[in-house]
Amino acid sequence: VNSPIEDRFLTDWSGLRRGAPSELHRPADTSEVAAIVRRCHASHRSITVQGGLTGLAGGAVPADGDVVINLERMNRIEDIDDLEGVMRVQAGATLEQVQSAAAAAGWYFPVDLGARGSCQVGGNAATNAGGQRVLRYGTMRDSVLGVEVVLADGKVLDSLTCLVKNSAGLDPRFLFIGSEGTLGIITRLVLKLQPPPGPPSAAIAALPDVASLARLLRHLKQTLGGMLHAYEFMSRRFVELSVSLTSVGSPVDPSAPWAVLVEARGVQGQTVEESLQAALAFALEDGLISDCAIAASLSDVEAFWRLRQSTPELLTHLKPTVNFDCGLPLRHIPGFVDRVDARLRERFPAAQHLFFGHLGDNNIHLVTGPHREEDMHSVDELVYRELEGHQGTISAEHGIGFIKKPFLAHTRCAAQIELLRSLKRALDPRQVLNPGRVLD
Amino acid sequence: VNSPIEDRFLTDWSGLRRGAPSELHRPADTSEVAAIVRRCHASHRSITVQGGLTGLAGGAVPADGDVVINLERMNRIEDIDDLEGVMRVQAGATLEQVQSAAAAAGWYFPVDLGARGSCQVGGNAATNAGGQRVLRYGTMRDSVLGVEVVLADGKVLDSLTCLVKNSAGLDPRFLFIGSEGTLGIITRLVLKLQPPPGPPSAAIAALPDVASLARLLRHLKQTLGGMLHAYEFMSRRFVELSVSLTSVGSPVDPSAPWAVLVEARGVQGQTVEESLQAALAFALEDGLISDCAIAASLSDVEAFWRLRQSTPELLTHLKPTVNFDCGLPLRHIPGFVDRVDARLRERFPAAQHLFFGHLGDNNIHLVTGPHREEDMHSVDELVYRELEGHQGTISAEHGIGFIKKPFLAHTRCAAQIELLRSLKRALDPRQVLNPGRVLD
Repeated sequence: VNSPIEDRFLTDWSGLRRGAPSELHRPADTSEVAAIVRRCHASHRSITVQGGLTGLAGGAVPADGDVVINLERMNRIEDIDDLEGVMRVQAGATLEQVQSAAAAAGWYFPVDLGARGSCQVGGNAATNAGGQRVLRYGTMRDSVLGVEVVLADGKVLDSLTCLVKNSAGLDPRFLFIGSEGTLGIITRLVLKLQPPPGPPSAAIAALPDVASLARLLRHLKQTLGGMLHAYEFMSRRFVELSVSLTSVGSPVDPSAPWAVLVEARGVQGQTVEESLQAALAFALEDGLISDCAIAASLSDVEAFWRLRQSTPELLTHLKPTVNFDCGLPLRHIPGFVDRVDARLRERFPAAQHLFFGHLGDNNIHLVTGPHREEDMHSVDELVYRELEGHQGTISAEHGIGFIKKPFLAHTRCAAQIELLRSLKRALDPRQVLNPGRVLD
Repeated sequence: VNSPIEDRFLTDWSGLRRGAPSELHRPADTSEVAAIVRRCHASHRSITVQGGLTGLAGGAVPADGDVVINLERMNRIEDIDDLEGVMRVQAGATLEQVQSAAAAAGWYFPVDLGARGSCQVGGNAATNAGGQRVLRYGTMRDSVLGVEVVLADGKVLDSLTCLVKNSAGLDPRFLFIGSEGTLGIITRLVLKLQPPPGPPSAAIAALPDVASLARLLRHLKQTLGGMLHAYEFMSRRFVELSVSLTSVGSPVDPSAPWAVLVEARGVQGQTVEESLQAALAFALEDGLISDCAIAASLSDVEAFWRLRQSTPELLTHLKPTVNFDCGLPLRHIPGFVDRVDARLRERFPAAQHLFFGHLGDNNIHLVTGPHREEDMHSVDELVYRELEGHQGTISAEHGIGFIKKPFLAHTRCAAQIELLRSLKRALDPRQVLNPGRVLD
């Protein structure tokens, strides 16, 4: 266990590096995790909890002297209850493993993100992961029915329920989902499965202005209801660059200021292309959209998604970049986008500023670059300042970890931060679990 | 404010009475609530928080000397954001007010229960209310995006966000939703609205045995997906008595041991009767159901629901009754129902024992009566004993309050109860807010 610690355990996808941990443990089950935590608790030592190390906020990056608990060996699918549509798994199972096991049982696990092959469901829960399908199925929180957690003193809390309703006292799972490993280590989970959806229908629409993005979303929610599965927006510059970096041609007028990828799905065996077509035809007549291409085949659907998911290529092309994961109420989005775009162009005229993301979840990603190292903090400050007073968040889905900690007060007020502190004091008074993440 | 306290503030729908409170306050806004709480905190006095007093667990019933804060005057719909589909309200607005305001704005608030005209959305959130539409839309928790809360020391926590995704630290709303007013007083809420569904199609099916209930549910989930809006089961004796107490004839063979009411809905302007028919025809061929009646009109749909919702008449007819609100994994339900039914018949041969409820949410209601006062505790013990070892809950949707507190350990293990205690100590060390509810 305590031979030299491999490099891969020292950083995550954020690229942050903090130091040399003293020990690495890869426990095989909950009782092994509990034993390590008990020992660290007794000797007041700091633990860093690690899942698949795909985080973008540096939360799983260890500091000097930390005891690292990596859950990669706890990757067993323990049970699938086909009648109920639930699955019990160890926290170190990858998201892809869970998706495949669900599909093999005739069910569907809806949480999905680019890191699916490496990220672990325990980490997805600890950070309340979002991804591509939040609009229809919610975040990870909505797909976790029960958890087993090792608490800061090494006690095991078993709340592995599969019940969708339980009003017998506060539900403990919500203390651990989204708390980034600071209040307990999630070791096992009961996941809620969904009936598999039918085949996807998709379209890309061009929009005349950013205000139309929110109005089209409202129209599609009202007409497609639960059939609306994705609503992903892209700025003109995003589409242009994505077209040039991928082999996909622009399916709509590339001079339109905004484009949106819409996906609709029904139940198994049902195609919903007609409903999607009718909803978009109405939007075209109404002037909400200026142009529209509907996928004629599954390979068109894939090409549309390829255009939207070219972020890795864009990041490489524009590096070094500063990346954002903001959330805002829809009514504040046009003003926010216009102001941030104008100020970034003025201040950094040589850089590109690309807006895109899960607009159906109020989530705006912004990639801006290239930037010099010494300008990066100013870029952060410029963008986060524009969020103030608009009930926005600095992290819609990536979490706070270490990297976004300096900016937390842009999103959470003093009373909220004090509440988080009092929870940490109550549940981990010795600061054993992931100290220094989210809060100081 | 402090004239003699009206009788209606001394009890709730459970009928429990505990004593004479010393003061009653009906504040008009958050700052008035905060001022009362600050004063009670300073002088170590106990507060009872009251919504619409429709609870069935006695949580809002005051004890001798309590300071009662009743929120009925805080009933303002403050804002509806039509673009986003969210509503900001004061906690004392009734559920019906919220439903009507949503409908008037072209949206739909999905939480619904019999007490809608009296119960308040603050109470619905504090108890994480369930009701008729959980299968499709989740519990109250899933319809609350943000809360404003007065904490035990009178500080106001503003988390009135409308964002569906916010990963900037733990989401504080989940400490207050479902904690029955023991950790804070919810004073305002941001509610998530849904697109209005299309017209309901409904059917009543007869089933040969209790195991088929779960298998039919799985089949309908898989074939109807998000169109499946309700799955309510009734035992033969429930149907017989309901038929005799209402003017509704039995739409299916009344000698079948089990019946289920299925409701399906699509989006606005869409009828889903054909999908429902096809799914049930398959179930009939497959032997999952033995008989089936599909509503031919909206008045048929209403009659089917009338049969299911005859509980007030049943309770009167069988009184004094003992009533249950259990939840169990589907695979344990047949055994539980068979064992409880057999033991109740054996022990109380003169009483009736009716099983029914939201099976789609794992929720079994049981009404048994008439019982003598001195037998009631034995009835409780008999039923809860059968839950043990089956990952069930003693309260799927009604909460714990005072009345179910003695039985909490049937559902929550020692580590869970200790966690709830440590939250109470951290957030309300002086035991100001609803002391004695849920936990001692």
